[in-house]
Amino acid sequence: MPSLPTFYRLACQQAVSFPGRTAIVYRDQRLSFADICDRANRIANVLKAEGVREGDRVLWLGQNANRVLELFLACSRLGAGLCVANWRQSVAELAFVIRDIDARVIFWQQEEVGDVTVEARTAADSDAMWIRHDGDDAESYEGRIAAAAAEAGEEAGTDSINRPLLILYSAAFGGRPNGAQLSDVGLFLQMLTHTSALGIGRDNVGLVSTPMFHIVAWLDLLPTFMMGGKVAIARRTEAQALCELIHREKIVTGRLHPPIAARIAEYNADRRFDLSSFRSSLDIPGWKEMTGSGPEIGGTGQTEVAGPIVLHALGGSTPFSGRIAPFAEARVVNPDGTDAPPGKLGELWIRGASAGLGYWNRPELNAERMRGDWWRTTDLARRDADGTISFAGPMLQMVKTGGENVYPAEVEAAIKSHPAITAAAIIGTPDPIWSQIVTGIVALAPDAHLTLETLRAYLKDRIAGYKIPRALHIVQKMPMKGLVPDYAALDARFGGGNYPGQARKA
Amino acid sequence: MPSLPTFYRLACQQAVSFPGRTAIVYRDQRLSFADICDRANRIANVLKAEGVREGDRVLWLGQNANRVLELFLACSRLGAGLCVANWRQSVAELAFVIRDIDARVIFWQQEEVGDVTVEARTAADSDAMWIRHDGDDAESYEGRIAAAAAEAGEEAGTDSINRPLLILYSAAFGGRPNGAQLSDVGLFLQMLTHTSALGIGRDNVGLVSTPMFHIVAWLDLLPTFMMGGKVAIARRTEAQALCELIHREKIVTGRLHPPIAARIAEYNADRRFDLSSFRSSLDIPGWKEMTGSGPEIGGTGQTEVAGPIVLHALGGSTPFSGRIAPFAEARVVNPDGTDAPPGKLGELWIRGASAGLGYWNRPELNAERMRGDWWRTTDLARRDADGTISFAGPMLQMVKTGGENVYPAEVEAAIKSHPAITAAAIIGTPDPIWSQIVTGIVALAPDAHLTLETLRAYLKDRIAGYKIPRALHIVQKMPMKGLVPDYAALDARFGGGNYPGQARKA
Repeated sequence: MPSLPTFYRLACQQAVSFPGRTAIVYRDQRLSFADICDRANRIANVLKAEGVREGDRVLWLGQNANRVLELFLACSRLGAGLCVANWRQSVAELAFVIRDIDARVIFWQQEEVGDVTVEARTAADSDAMWIRHDGDDAESYEGRIAAAAAEAGEEAGTDSINRPLLILYSAAFGGRPNGAQLSDVGLFLQMLTHTSALGIGRDNVGLVSTPMFHIVAWLDLLPTFMMGGKVAIARRTEAQALCELIHREKIVTGRLHPPIAARIAEYNADRRFDLSSFRSSLDIPGWKEMTGSGPEIGGTGQTEVAGPIVLHALGGSTPFSGRIAPFAEARVVNPDGTDAPPGKLGELWIRGASAGLGYWNRPELNAERMRGDWWRTTDLARRDADGTISFAGPMLQMVKTGGENVYPAEVEAAIKSHPAITAAAIIGTPDPIWSQIVTGIVALAPDAHLTLETLRAYLKDRIAGYKIPRALHIVQKMPMKGLVPDYAALDARFGGGNYPGQARKA
Repeated sequence: MPSLPTFYRLACQQAVSFPGRTAIVYRDQRLSFADICDRANRIANVLKAEGVREGDRVLWLGQNANRVLELFLACSRLGAGLCVANWRQSVAELAFVIRDIDARVIFWQQEEVGDVTVEARTAADSDAMWIRHDGDDAESYEGRIAAAAAEAGEEAGTDSINRPLLILYSAAFGGRPNGAQLSDVGLFLQMLTHTSALGIGRDNVGLVSTPMFHIVAWLDLLPTFMMGGKVAIARRTEAQALCELIHREKIVTGRLHPPIAARIAEYNADRRFDLSSFRSSLDIPGWKEMTGSGPEIGGTGQTEVAGPIVLHALGGSTPFSGRIAPFAEARVVNPDGTDAPPGKLGELWIRGASAGLGYWNRPELNAERMRGDWWRTTDLARRDADGTISFAGPMLQMVKTGGENVYPAEVEAAIKSHPAITAAAIIGTPDPIWSQIVTGIVALAPDAHLTLETLRAYLKDRIAGYKIPRALHIVQKMPMKGLVPDYAALDARFGGGNYPGQARKA
């Protein structure tokens, strides 16, 4: 019978299709496809011996490494789920994840992040088997795979679309994160779509520097790996290490956040590293002169649907707009479940192989987020007349004022059209009469001035009266979280919060 | 729950992602994605009313048309299988297919192919509903969809990997063709791999001129259609019509067989049509000067695995070599089931979503061709040291002489290294002592001469004695069937046949 792809099978095939070719560069190691496959089989046999079976979980508490990919392939073979947790978390946060994911085996790292991990281990009181990945004794990752059998072969059933392979914590609506589950087949189709949209071929050299607890790191890794190219994995993002890596390996593709690119531009101002092989669309002074130009990777999506599934490479007028990947479907939906007309905001819903496994161990939240086969992203979006979809902001940040729903993204877009304003955010602050009032926070251009009155007058004909801010704060620099304002920081500073959208999800 | 893609869902999504954009050009019609979707829904509703249910078959007896795509999408919605039959067949051959496929509804064409079809209909005595596709009365395809409901929605279950969507007759080992079955998911993954390997984007303009009863026509059509590009469908291959189409639509991609390219080069010798948009790798005098250059599309595969699944675009030294598409797996296998070592010939086996549905209504043959999840292609291939796979010839043509197996492809390669020889084919002819003897047929360079004795002397140190021809025929021009000698024609002319490989499959 026909069989669905799994990453394990395909990695084994890569070892045969590309004998001797370097697949992964990590620190001073160069691993071929056959090396990765052999190591994946050995660590799978270690996991098997520790009792890991189809449906069990394995947890990674460390920085980026080739071993994360090997465990991913081992879990694909065994039918298990690999959870990669954020090593930047506090002890309490880590302990929550350790308890929540209930892994049979946990891999941890001494270097840099060991102290927090050891404390979290004590706090969580987990009965998992703990294996240190960066040691070299017999009980470490390397010690164990050296002693393990090299035996290959699948242990999992064929249902690789309904089984989580990768679990990434995200979406802390209620103050606690939730583990988004992604299947072998869902990740595979997303990988193949990115391969095509970004034009990745076997001559590509990719960089993974984004932490592998973020889905985008996997979309940097998997397309190049599965096409037979070479991927350099950086343990973490440091300007010097990244410069050396890009220069030495002649890296072509990889996501870099703008602040990291800016740090690299500063560090490499004297051009002692040649970064001209790197294709980047970031418009950062200094940076863009030292790299090649590349396609805009943007679009929109979320971890729960395997990342950017509305791809800018497929069209769209801004970096946050695009078309749905051609293996999935998208709808922009009104509160009553009907399709929002073109140009109007609604909730983005996604259907397809990478959507709908929901969160680990959250049956009620999952039921809330599914409508039939459709996954509600809780993101606000708009479909334009050309069929492209634009991300407008998180819906759960919705402000409720005098019975009306106000979506910050909509108001922010109107405010930002004012020439004096360089950045804008909307929060809701408590009010005895209106329940919440719309509060604006803005950053201004040099020497510009703005009062609440002039802003209100400016907005009068632009948006409905109830959406116009009733309070205004001016900041030197807008705190950001990725590409959107850091609403949590702004709420803490200016007394906002308690949003109806969030309350519904908590 | 996550859901696998179907072409029906994705076509509906294209109508939303690319509003107003032309999807298909056919004769004087320009159809948008929404038009195609609407027409697919209407013809699906016609089929439903005629009783077509999941697992039923629909048969197309006509030339290329937009309606074949519409029926394909309608069958994807209903869970039915669309069989596209070869309109070049004789009455007896067509009648066999009509009886064998046992379709509930048959679409037929009056123009050009109607006479044979009507005779075959009488001979087959089928009780299917017959609908003429190229008429315009109320009972024709157009009449019926004009009257049909536009209602959308899926009727099929979710098992789109184990259900045939497209059925193409091929592989007439035993004198009768067999209907190779391909699933929605298998075709989808093959489509996405071709999209990536060939760099197809939404600005592409594709040409479908190969008959749609061949799988390669679908690999010309689907990648461009699913990426949002435009596809021009040619009813058949005629030099004038193709010149007009390439010139007018600025066509970029599409497979053309060398003889057709040669005819076009001759027809357009005065360059009255601008064919410079067309990307071609064909090295045909006249032709290559009037077109742009493009990637080699080659590789190897067969209809039963959704066409070229070993893709030259992924590597390989000759047009018939390449690497396995990264959603599938390939093995080159010895007769005892072990892997053949690099450089040695073996049978090509394929595993993956597009392999293993086997032939319609041939349970015994399917059992013979499957080994676990692996599909035996009955093609001879070799894996080279760089991991690429090369097609060497059909295995079923194997000659059995004195108990030894002789594969024509291997002997032909040795013969063709002789400087006087421009083409070579090996057949087996009956012999009372040896059961069969190896008989060579060759074409010679101008003014060259060759005798059996000089050929045998030349081959003596090149291949084993039992493989060296014991009889020789010299022909002016080697009869070809696509890319390999027309063995059936040579057998008929020189008394070959009755191959043990074929006998096993009959």
